[in-house]
Amino acid sequence: MTKSVSSNLSPTAASHPGFTGIRTAQNPHPRPSNPYQPVGDFLSNVSRFKIIESTLREGEQFANAFFDTETKIRIAKALDDFGVDYIELTSPAASEQSRLDCEAICKLGLKAKILTHVRCHMDDARLAVETGVDGVDVVIGTSSYLREHSHGKDMTYIKNAAIEVIEFVKSKGLEIRFSSEDSFRSDLVDLLSIYSAVDKVGVGRVGIADTVGCASPRQVYDLVRTLRGVVSCDIETHFHNDTGCAIANAYCALEAGATHIDTSVIGIGERNGITPLGGLMARMIVADHDYVTGKYKLHKLKEIEDMVAEAVQINIPFNNYITGFCAFTHKAGIHAKAILNNPSTYEIINPADFGMSRYVHFASRLTGWNAIKSRVEQLGLEMTDAQIKLVTAKIKALADVRPIAIDDADSIIRTFHLNLHSKEEKPLIADLTEEEQAKFEEAERQLSGEGEKRALEQEAEADAAPAAKKAKVAA
Amino acid sequence: MTKSVSSNLSPTAASHPGFTGIRTAQNPHPRPSNPYQPVGDFLSNVSRFKIIESTLREGEQFANAFFDTETKIRIAKALDDFGVDYIELTSPAASEQSRLDCEAICKLGLKAKILTHVRCHMDDARLAVETGVDGVDVVIGTSSYLREHSHGKDMTYIKNAAIEVIEFVKSKGLEIRFSSEDSFRSDLVDLLSIYSAVDKVGVGRVGIADTVGCASPRQVYDLVRTLRGVVSCDIETHFHNDTGCAIANAYCALEAGATHIDTSVIGIGERNGITPLGGLMARMIVADHDYVTGKYKLHKLKEIEDMVAEAVQINIPFNNYITGFCAFTHKAGIHAKAILNNPSTYEIINPADFGMSRYVHFASRLTGWNAIKSRVEQLGLEMTDAQIKLVTAKIKALADVRPIAIDDADSIIRTFHLNLHSKEEKPLIADLTEEEQAKFEEAERQLSGEGEKRALEQEAEADAAPAAKKAKVAA
Repeated sequence: MTKSVSSNLSPTAASHPGFTGIRTAQNPHPRPSNPYQPVGDFLSNVSRFKIIESTLREGEQFANAFFDTETKIRIAKALDDFGVDYIELTSPAASEQSRLDCEAICKLGLKAKILTHVRCHMDDARLAVETGVDGVDVVIGTSSYLREHSHGKDMTYIKNAAIEVIEFVKSKGLEIRFSSEDSFRSDLVDLLSIYSAVDKVGVGRVGIADTVGCASPRQVYDLVRTLRGVVSCDIETHFHNDTGCAIANAYCALEAGATHIDTSVIGIGERNGITPLGGLMARMIVADHDYVTGKYKLHKLKEIEDMVAEAVQINIPFNNYITGFCAFTHKAGIHAKAILNNPSTYEIINPADFGMSRYVHFASRLTGWNAIKSRVEQLGLEMTDAQIKLVTAKIKALADVRPIAIDDADSIIRTFHLNLHSKEEKPLIADLTEEEQAKFEEAERQLSGEGEKRALEQEAEADAAPAAKKAKVAA
Repeated sequence: MTKSVSSNLSPTAASHPGFTGIRTAQNPHPRPSNPYQPVGDFLSNVSRFKIIESTLREGEQFANAFFDTETKIRIAKALDDFGVDYIELTSPAASEQSRLDCEAICKLGLKAKILTHVRCHMDDARLAVETGVDGVDVVIGTSSYLREHSHGKDMTYIKNAAIEVIEFVKSKGLEIRFSSEDSFRSDLVDLLSIYSAVDKVGVGRVGIADTVGCASPRQVYDLVRTLRGVVSCDIETHFHNDTGCAIANAYCALEAGATHIDTSVIGIGERNGITPLGGLMARMIVADHDYVTGKYKLHKLKEIEDMVAEAVQINIPFNNYITGFCAFTHKAGIHAKAILNNPSTYEIINPADFGMSRYVHFASRLTGWNAIKSRVEQLGLEMTDAQIKLVTAKIKALADVRPIAIDDADSIIRTFHLNLHSKEEKPLIADLTEEEQAKFEEAERQLSGEGEKRALEQEAEADAAPAAKKAKVAA
């Protein structure tokens, strides 16, 4: 966690990519920067956040989750190895097995601190402190919805129950967090007064929870910022993803001074889940590359996600952050060209930081000749630019006729290359129907920039005699 | 689009759920509200946004996408029926088939306006205006990354090219949008000066694009709000989801005065895609229920998503907004209890608005007796609360031993009920191994609240004699 950048700027600001617009001794030639790059102010914890990993608590509330003891231990060890700060476990009051598993995980001797998450009630707190955990997370609903339809208690009752539990857990020498539930539909005055009360009796952290997933980023920023002025303890935040803001809200919470973010692997939890560990890594590595790569073993992410996905019998979503199959796939011609020149053009995350690879998709009608050029080089073939433009036109025409696989494109490139250097002319592709063949020829003729194409062909003829043979595509 | 609420508040503010804290003639008994509920200010377009649906442009850049003409037409018709304002298509310059498809979709006579998306170049613009589209979206990279590594043009060139294209498209009587690319890594002064220049020559919309997915919500709010003060035309925004902020950024853009949001079905696009149509609906229905339900045919969402998922051969992610299999599944005991009392406790979106259903998961060790009570009622059985608490304890104990399906829980409930009313006592579950049986008995004995459970059993004995027989679970 040592910083690689040292300057008189705050670490947050200095490590933001692009935040190099201020001339300093360490940065004598600042690049012009976008003033909209967020400037880390004194509140921001973007560069020193901690993770409370809740796959074994919130994640167990996911519809498909049934973790046996062995699976829980495997997940806990993997999360610990990844580098999360805390691992949160299901309440020992939920069932006898939950209690035993809690004890078993506490005995593993992990670097991460172990927490369990219980109702704000002395019975649960007593059970919790006996499991060997490092800390207890207590929670109670504070919104009018929950007070009316769930536990039916008033704010005075809640405050007294909280203080009793907090003092009990502290007396056992353990960490203690107090969280409201459904914080964004709770009365602000109620919220602040209970947080202030628990802060005064020495709670370690207070928690804000968007239990129903209704909060929006600027709301989160405002509430956390206000709370930051009311309490002196740490602030933990927990965001559900029902309306698609779980990662953004976590980020805005950190900007406003929150210290801890709850996550789960692939975001599993109640309903469609919470802030995903991998998605948070994607967000935070863009905000502070050095902090994130220095603290977490990012190349283990895929392994952990695969382990959890298998345990709960789900597929990794195609569009999952970082590890989804298309996360680093580039397709459009203009994108592919730029990516091949400089990956930063269309990539804000370096896949190598996660042990992943970039893939430039060239077998489509949106391809461009730069993508094909790169492929030609990968295949170890030598062709002039003019020749590459010609074969690109053929691949695009074919992609108009039917979906083409990488194999198809490779085969066209190889055959085209072969034809360049041989007397005999092989068909570029062998299995087109008559209808497809006609369509292909039409597409080839009509390819946009007809004149440009003709010029290319002429250039190709001049450059390299064999290319002058207009390669025929025959059934 | 008539509003169902009339008051002297702005429509935005009045229709926010919970924003009822101000006493008016129409709202004489305001509920205490959370002051952090966003208050619609005069900039906000949260209650009058428009959708530019780009499945047939951005979506075609998704790794797996190959849409034939028939599929494109089916998708365009479905999106039109859903109620999107615009449908954006791949450039006719991409390939001959793209041009023909563009013409074919323009001829369908849809209510939605048809756009095509081209490079900022007269050749592309000429092709575009001849396809019959209602408008042309032009785009050019303005970041230093793209200017250096993609097209290599300077800002003066870009401005002149833009003005030429805009005046040409306007002369044909079509709508015209000018967008920068990679706006959040472009120089702010460059950006504002080109937007100001194109606004002066009468562009219809300007576009901000987070092409690499690096923007964060407060950055978006700031940039859009600044731009809102510079141009008088509409503002469109386009957000990639690489760092998990695509929906949140769209929402903050609307709060800051953006008018149009780009979406695609299930978010498909370059890399892991853009703001998903369904996810945006989830976000916006929470912000303005009446506007969203009045304008869009939300119950068609699942059908459209299934159609597109099939066309690009992907599975709908398990955690997809609204239509994912677990979007409305509730599992934890305290959640289930409250949901059964009042769904608003743990649901910010009513699944019925989308033709979906809620599902309370009761076959797990996290279940509570309220969930089981609801299931008992669904099964048409009559049991006292004490009896239900007893069978709940048995289900939790069993769920500790092995994963249980709904069938298992139902079978336990039915057998338990049968035993209540018969002389003979059947085993609650028939296929446990000896080891499982021992574990089950242990779990039952150890169930938290042992004393409480005994009291329940006594109460049950007093209430209903047949329940006094301690139901045995035998192999």
